[in-house]
This record gives sequence, C-alpha cells and structure tokens, in this order.
Amino acid sequence: MNQPSVEVILQPIGRRIEVPAGTNLLETARLAGVDLIAICGGEGSCGGCRIRPVEGQLSPRTLTEQAELSNADLAAGYRLACQTEVLGNVRVDIPPESFTTPQRLQVEGQETETDNDPVILPVEVEVFPASMQDLRSDLTRVKEALAAQNLPGAFFSRRVTLGLPGKLRANDWHLRLALRGNEVVAVLPPGSPLYGLAVDIGTTKLAAYLVNLISGETAAKAGAMNPQIAYGEDVISRITYVNEHAEGAQTLQTHLIESLNQLLETLCAEVGITRGQVVEAVLVGNTAMHHLLVGLPVKQLGESPYIAAASDAMQFPAEEIGLELAPGAYIYLPPNLAGYVGTDHVSMLLGAELVAPAQTTLALDIGTNTEISLIHQGKHFSCSCASGPAFEGAHIKDGMRAAPGAIERVHFSGEKVHVQTINAQPACGICGSGILDAVSELRKAGLLDARGALAGTHPHLTGTGRRAEFILVPAAETAVGRELKISRSDINEIQLAKGAIRAGIEVLLERAGIPATGIQSFIVAGAFGTYLDLESAITIGMFPNLPRERFAQVGNAAGSGARALLVSAHQRQLADELSQRVEYVELANHPDFMKIYVRALAFGNS
Amino acid sequence: MNQPSVEVILQPIGRRIEVPAGTNLLETARLAGVDLIAICGGEGSCGGCRIRPVEGQLSPRTLTEQAELSNADLAAGYRLACQTEVLGNVRVDIPPESFTTPQRLQVEGQETETDNDPVILPVEVEVFPASMQDLRSDLTRVKEALAAQNLPGAFFSRRVTLGLPGKLRANDWHLRLALRGNEVVAVLPPGSPLYGLAVDIGTTKLAAYLVNLISGETAAKAGAMNPQIAYGEDVISRITYVNEHAEGAQTLQTHLIESLNQLLETLCAEVGITRGQVVEAVLVGNTAMHHLLVGLPVKQLGESPYIAAASDAMQFPAEEIGLELAPGAYIYLPPNLAGYVGTDHVSMLLGAELVAPAQTTLALDIGTNTEISLIHQGKHFSCSCASGPAFEGAHIKDGMRAAPGAIERVHFSGEKVHVQTINAQPACGICGSGILDAVSELRKAGLLDARGALAGTHPHLTGTGRRAEFILVPAAETAVGRELKISRSDINEIQLAKGAIRAGIEVLLERAGIPATGIQSFIVAGAFGTYLDLESAITIGMFPNLPRERFAQVGNAAGSGARALLVSAHQRQLADELSQRVEYVELANHPDFMKIYVRALAFGNS
Repeated sequence: MNQPSVEVILQPIGRRIEVPAGTNLLETARLAGVDLIAICGGEGSCGGCRIRPVEGQLSPRTLTEQAELSNADLAAGYRLACQTEVLGNVRVDIPPESFTTPQRLQVEGQETETDNDPVILPVEVEVFPASMQDLRSDLTRVKEALAAQNLPGAFFSRRVTLGLPGKLRANDWHLRLALRGNEVVAVLPPGSPLYGLAVDIGTTKLAAYLVNLISGETAAKAGAMNPQIAYGEDVISRITYVNEHAEGAQTLQTHLIESLNQLLETLCAEVGITRGQVVEAVLVGNTAMHHLLVGLPVKQLGESPYIAAASDAMQFPAEEIGLELAPGAYIYLPPNLAGYVGTDHVSMLLGAELVAPAQTTLALDIGTNTEISLIHQGKHFSCSCASGPAFEGAHIKDGMRAAPGAIERVHFSGEKVHVQTINAQPACGICGSGILDAVSELRKAGLLDARGALAGTHPHLTGTGRRAEFILVPAAETAVGRELKISRSDINEIQLAKGAIRAGIEVLLERAGIPATGIQSFIVAGAFGTYLDLESAITIGMFPNLPRERFAQVGNAAGSGARALLVSAHQRQLADELSQRVEYVELANHPDFMKIYVRALAFGNS
Repeated sequence: MNQPSVEVILQPIGRRIEVPAGTNLLETARLAGVDLIAICGGEGSCGGCRIRPVEGQLSPRTLTEQAELSNADLAAGYRLACQTEVLGNVRVDIPPESFTTPQRLQVEGQETETDNDPVILPVEVEVFPASMQDLRSDLTRVKEALAAQNLPGAFFSRRVTLGLPGKLRANDWHLRLALRGNEVVAVLPPGSPLYGLAVDIGTTKLAAYLVNLISGETAAKAGAMNPQIAYGEDVISRITYVNEHAEGAQTLQTHLIESLNQLLETLCAEVGITRGQVVEAVLVGNTAMHHLLVGLPVKQLGESPYIAAASDAMQFPAEEIGLELAPGAYIYLPPNLAGYVGTDHVSMLLGAELVAPAQTTLALDIGTNTEISLIHQGKHFSCSCASGPAFEGAHIKDGMRAAPGAIERVHFSGEKVHVQTINAQPACGICGSGILDAVSELRKAGLLDARGALAGTHPHLTGTGRRAEFILVPAAETAVGRELKISRSDINEIQLAKGAIRAGIEVLLERAGIPATGIQSFIVAGAFGTYLDLESAITIGMFPNLPRERFAQVGNAAGSGARALLVSAHQRQLADELSQRVEYVELANHPDFMKIYVRALAFGNS
C-alpha cells in the first residue's frame, strides 16, 4: 500500500523534500542531496548522523539511540537520523558536525592594508618587582613602567586588573600589554602576538576572520550558518519571534554568540593561538542582526515607523555579551546608517572603498535583505529592500543553498539544457545563481513572458498556466532520483526578489535625479553577488542594462570592511563620517513606491 | 546517665556554648542568649527557627521538617532548630530572619553636607517623537535633546541603551536622565528621585546607607553581618580559605554581594523606591574586603611582601559584579592607601574631615584589623595592625557581639561588680566594650598585674595562675543559667589586641619623631570606638595617657566618608590626593617591631 506523502524540511541548509511517510530520515536526507555522516552504514553505532527535530511527528526513540546518544543529547532532544522515520510533515535541524561536506560560504574578499593609525598598540613593559622595600600595588608599578615609556595615565578596567598579579609573577615581571587608546585591554606574556576577530553576521550566514593586528594579515577564515535561522528565515520573522516569546531575544542572542564562540575556537585552533590573544572584535550586520547581537530591543524596529534603538558606533567589553576574547577586549560595531541599512552596509562601503567615490556609483549587497547605496555628486542615498531568501535557495521547490551538488549555472543550447553544479557533483538542487540563470535562459528562449508566465514549446516544458514547469535535469541524472524543475511559483519568488531590488535602485535614481545610465560604476558585493551571472541579472531586469565594464563584483566587501575596521582607527572615523553623510530613503514612505515596484516586477530590461 | 559535653558555635553572631550531647538546638540557642523565632513554641509548625548546619553531627531530619521546609530549603540543607538535637561539636549558621531581636550594628555617624560638585546630575529631556518623517534612531534623538541643553557628546553605554526604546515610549518621550560626568547612567521617568548606596564593608559587619543624591540626605540605614565570617573570622583566615579552595574567591564574593543586594532591597523598601532609582554606589573596606569584593586576587596580599593588586580608585559598572542597581550604575571604590590600609580608612579620614588637619592628629578605627593614621606637620603616616576579633567578642569564652543582653559596661564598686547590658536585658555574654571595662576594672582593683596575671583577694575571683577566673555575673542573674566570667586566657586575648594597637601607635610616633604627648587630637572612629570607655582604654594602656579633651569618638566615620564620596566629586579628588600623600609604614618591616610590641603588651600607662 502506498504511504501518503509528507514534507521534510532540513535546516539550516534550507532543503525541502517530499517522501512517503515512514521513510528513514537518513535516507530522506540523502534523497534531498544532503549527506550526513554515516560511517556505520546506518546501523546506529557511529552516532554521526545526529539531528534535532524542530517540529512534526517522527517515530519514537529506539533503544539503540538511548544507548548511543549522550545524556545531554537525549535531554536536548537529539535523534540519530538512521534510527528515525518521518511519520508526518517535519522540520529537523542538522548540526554542522553531522554534514559530510562543508557548505560553500562566502569568506573571500579583498585584503585591506593596515594603515598607520592602529586600534591596538602592543607595548612591552619590564616592571620593577615588589619587595619589602617597595610595597606599592601591582597596578601602580605597571603604570609606572608605562609612564617611563611616555604612556602615562593608562586605564586598566576591573576585568584586566584581575589577571595582573598572576601574570606579573608568572612572567617574571615582564609583560606585553595591548593598548587601545588610553586603555590596556590585555595583559600577555612578552612577545605574544595580538589578534582580532572580524565577523560579517548575515541573516543567513556568518563569515569570520582572524586578523593579526600587528601585520594586518588575515590568518584564518571560517564560515557558518546563522543559527537564528531556526527562529525565522528573514529579519521580520525573527523580530516577530522575539515579540511573541518572552525570552525570545535572549534565545536568539545566545545562539548567535555560541556560534561566534565556536567560530572563534576553530580559527584560534587553526592559527595555534588562545582566545586570550584575541584582543578586539568588529562585528557587522544589518540593523536587526546588530540589535539582536547587542541585546537592543527590536520591537520598535519591526513596526512602523521602523526605528533603530541606536545608530551610532558602539563599543563595549566583549565579556558583557559572552563573546570569549581576552578578558578586557572590546567589541566595536560601526554605525548603522538608518532603519534597515545596517553596519554591514557601512562595512561594505568601506571594504569596497566607496566612502566618497569620484564617479556616480551604485553599490549593493544582495541578501535576504538588500541594502543599496547611490553616491552622486557628493550626495549619498541609501535604502533597504526586503528581497527575501529566494536567492539563498529558500522558498524555491528544488532550491538549496550553495553547497556541493547545487546547480549554480544553467545554459540553454537550442533544445539542450546544460547545468553546472558546485564541485561538479551530481545535481541535488538549485542554488541562487542557478535559479537566476534558469529564469534568464527561459526569458531568452522566449518561454517566459514579462509578467512571469511560462509558455511555449520545449521538450523540457511540461504543464500549462500556473502548473507549467521546466525540467532542468531529468531524474536519471540527479543525485536525488527525481527531476529537478523550475515551477511557475519558483519564478514568482524570483520575480518578487528582483522586483524589490530593482525598485530600490529606481527610487534612489529618482531621488538623485538621474537616469540609470548615469550610473558610472555599479558595485555588486556579497556572496551571491560574487557568483551571479551579470548577463542573467540584466536579462531578467534585476540590474539596469549598463555597459558591462561599469559593473564590478567585489566579493565579501562587508567582511573586508570589517577587517579594515579591526586594524584602523582611521577607518572607524570614516565610518562615522559616512553615517553622518548618508541620506536614508525609507521605501515604505515613498508615495509612488507601489507603482515603481509593480513596474520593476516585469522581466526584461527596456 | 550524663551525656558528654559538646561545643556549639552559633554563626554569624559568634556565640559559643557547651551543652550535653542530645540537647535541642533551639534550647541551646536560648542557653547561649540567642533568641530564635519560635511562635509555635518549638512544635515545628511555624518554621521560624530555620538554621543551616555548617559542620558537625546533628540528629537526622524529622518528618515535621520534611513537611515544613520548602524544597529549596531542604536542598540547601536547612533545618528547624526546634526539631534538631546536637550530637557532637557543631557549627550552625543562623540566617538574619530567624533572630527575634536585631543585633546592634553601627550605622550612626556624622552627616556630611553635599557640595556643589555632584557626582550625579539629573537632567530632564523632552525628546522629539519618532515618525515616518523623522526616522532617526532613539539614541540619536535623545542625544539631540541633551545637546539642546548644552550637554553635547553624552555617552550611553550598551546597558543603558538597552532600556531606552521602551522607556521613551512608556513615558511619552519625556525622561529624566542621570548624568555621571559625560555618561548617562540611568534612564528614568520624569521627576524620578535619584539615590545612591554607600556601604562600609567591615571584616565583621556591613553598614549600608541609602542617600538621596539630590538633597544629600541619608534616607535610610541598615546593618548586617558580613556573611564571609563563615569562611574565616579575620582577613588572614579568609585569604587562606581562598588560597585553599579553587572556587573560594568566587564563594566569598557571591555571599558578600548577596548580602549587599539584600541590604539594598531592605533600604529601598523602607524608602519606597526601586533599585532602578539607585544610580551610584560607594563601597569601602579594608584591602582584603576590597579585593574580595572586586574579584581581585588576594594570594599576593596574604604572603610577604603583602602586595595589593591595585591601589588606585576604581570605578566599574555595578552589574559586572552582580550588584543590582540601575542597569548603567557604577560602583566607585576610593583608593587604598597601601597593603592593609584600605579604602575604609581613606573614607574614615574623609568622614572625620582629617584630610589635612592643622593639628598633629592620630586617627584610628578599631576592628578585626585596625588602621591608624598619624598626621604631623603636613606628613601623613599610616599603618595597619592585626588586632584580631577579641573586641568583637570572638575568641573570648563568654564573648559575644554587641547584641541585646551583652554586657557592655563593667564597674567595680568596692567588692561589688556592676554590669550594664545592651537594652537592659538579662546578661547572656560580654561584648567588646564590656571586656575592655572588665580588664580595666581588674587592673584598677589591683587584681591584674602588668603582665596579665590575675591574682589577689576578691569574692568574685576563683582559681589561681592560669586557671584564675573572675565572675562578672553569678549564674542566677544571667539569661544563660551559668556564671559569666573573664578568664586568664580571655585577658591574654585582650592583651594581644591592645598590644597590637598600641605598638602601631608607637611605631607611627617614632616615624614622625614625636612623643605621644605630641598628639593634639586623638580620633577614635568605628563601632567599637563609639562604645568603648576611654578611661578603660587608657587604663589598660591601649591608648596613651593624654589630656581627655584631646580625644574624640566620632562614630562610623568610614560610613560618613562613604556617603560624602557618593555625592561629591570633590571628595573623590581629596581621596586621590590623600592616597598620594600617605606614607605607608609596614610594621612587619620595622627592625624593632617585636621589641615595641612586647613593650606594648604590658597593661597600664607609664
């Protein structure tokens, strides 16, 4: 007898699949193109395929699981996928350690050189030892040693002072101090290297960098998913979660900081240093990510008129929010520009060196939220568009994140459809750049009209009207054993996303009083921005049809900017200046926004 | 059959008693003159006599206790005294709420006037409300309102910013801010009063004051025992505890801060305000109390050459150590002078207005540790003596703290011995001032020689040599049903204490190059110093024999000084100046200290 079909959603990778009720969960993940560790072949003895159910009905826990999982895992509700059957629609969370292959996360970006205005200055001090003839306090003698180096009046916080007596005696009264302006933020053995942590906190992904604060070099990079995804895929749904749960803000903050601490641990291990040698952090993100990280309330950010609690640059001890750096280390957050144009956008503008470009420049970073800046004749306009997670593979039937096996390129050659997958692995889904290409190719092949309707004659096109689908890969050629398709509703998702972005661009152009052709430099930043095909973006009308040489894809400029802010006080000053200069354009406030948006939904470029 | 005798120690009141094994613990407390709440008459139904065993063997928990005590109390090991029998030598801790009568704690002291240099300034702001036409962040608009009042550049910490959006909207965009220099430390409804907390943290007792920061008036006072007593009666034994226990420092800090939070709650309830309206705290104590409070390591303070981790004034957010004031409130700690001459001594000097007296002045605050200052011709010498807890009633067979029923005055009239007890209650022990009087009266009666031997003929004197004892109150007249006596070993304890204090005075006089008669003003501060009889102190030779008009007993000057530091930035500056000026004299460093000390042990004044 055939079992009814149930839907399984795999978090945080964002993969959905329908399987018959009763299907084993490890098998379900495989069908969805998600490889979990299963060294034992699914017998339940290796414990590699740990997952955590979020909602929906699964088979009861087996004796094997009781024996294999730790008490802590059992208490936290963990299961072994190989021992579990899906009985209804379910959502499960896959911890990073259960994946066999790492996901492709964007941590590349331009290196920024250090300048002569460092945030952290190392100082070596030799301190006069305490004795019966010199009974002054430890702190007094360290301050004396600093004064002898023309650094009088240094401030030691309580946190830093706590470690002083032990470190003085363990290092024979010889120390390296990390000086941050007038404040000593770390006390280390002589000659110790000093590192900083920069993180771009995306709604979906985290990109972390460990930077040598003396050389300015990036020593290690690592990426991870933003664990807050479990509480909402986009900014608005996370704010809703916080508004509806008493401890919601705390929960989101705690999960994020746990992930940051894990990333830090990974980075430190790679470079062979301790957390105590990490003496400064720069964290950037959109305004909601910023507020949730800092602990600022988000209620007023989620309802009209959408007001940030604070927009100035902030700095506070990392310990206050549980980020485990050196005990006295600070977190620096650049200013928000306004509303949803966050610190990540400021950081991106710095990273792409767009503080005051001579040319008329448009710069954007496409994400679940897309922030756009247009700089024209010394004026700087910014806005934020809710472009949604479609380009992250979410809300797309066969969509997935940019992981191995994802279709990242699509090309039609006559009636033949070519696809390219990440790492050339058998296709198991479609990621953002692949979807963009597919829509563009459909458009070029005359199979997609300006309003988003699929019609025409093509061997891969099936169904009609709202049921029309285009098969990208036949079942036999995929890793998942079924066709990978683009549906009419997938096309609508892309249409909404590209419409939001294009409408934002149009509003800024109108505000600056110039036509699209006035844009002399068009900067595309961010992970998706790096991998997307410009021709496709122009074909579907997401970007205006400018001469191609005006476009530049600059990688994770927000990450580069965060690293620049980590090493340079001058960059921090630029960030402040930028935040003063920007004119924020609230799209919801624009009287004609709906008209502009509807026009921007059309596929094609006039 | 007679049961063997066992010793019961009652904490924190410091009472010891011997009873037959098997004696009921409520009864034992009564015999020791300690009244616990027992409304039900000891049936176990009122739950008033809750106590917590610290060590030793008690009878097992009864079913009545299982039923009466809360789960939390059961888990924490609480017992009901009335249901418990002592089976061996035991030590039990009595929580404050189980006492029927409050203990006498020194919270009196001179009121200090506020000056024109306040630490905290209230500012009322009316903020331009957020709207679709004004999308600036909440913080930006509050800063604008401050700038409009000529207060530009105000700093808001992360902690304070967190509460801003909610409070702005709850108070219709109208707020009172507490400004501390350039920093906003509290956000309150318009017109809210602003209070500060001052606490004198003694080794034995805590004296807390709630002060109105605008009027400078002390609104409420409260005292409590220092809960760290459970881990050592004096500074050295607490440092030893910390050195020997991995979590020792944390334990002592946590207990102290819990007690401070309880005191604060009591004070706030009395005045009818919330903790959020308490926006600053000044805490003073000796160097060990200071370090244990702040979390600074004490290992190096407990071993030669006895070095403080830090001696400068400190200020840090109260939240960092868990003191529950307004979220942005600071704790200010004045500078230590050095080694064991702590912030409480600085505070005492300020409270007694002895920063730069014109006369040659000696000032001391007698406690478990006694700090002494001698100011002569613009020079300021300070030392610290380990005088021990004898004057707190500890280490004295029938000693007790200054609680109701304690003998506080002793007077011989021929062969008759008169005693006066606190609150005129039946005698149950002897407190510091009573012991001092008794020793002095014995000396005057010719029953005590200079070396401390009790001998002679008196109806109250029994035994000879090391077994000699003097009966102060016959058994029939006491609350405890047995004689209250002064033994030879009690006299030795007093001798060691007074010898330490007098030796400290002598070393300072020698350093200043003046004789005792050169002291023009002799200031006695502190709780014991308020109640002690000057004649007795001079008779036994603890103080030099100066004209009586040169002496002044000034009450808890450390508390007064703490209150002055709470309201006045000028006083804080004086504290800094004082700490720079003082010359610390380490007694352990003095080549002739032992000789001076041995000489000072002699009873009498030459």
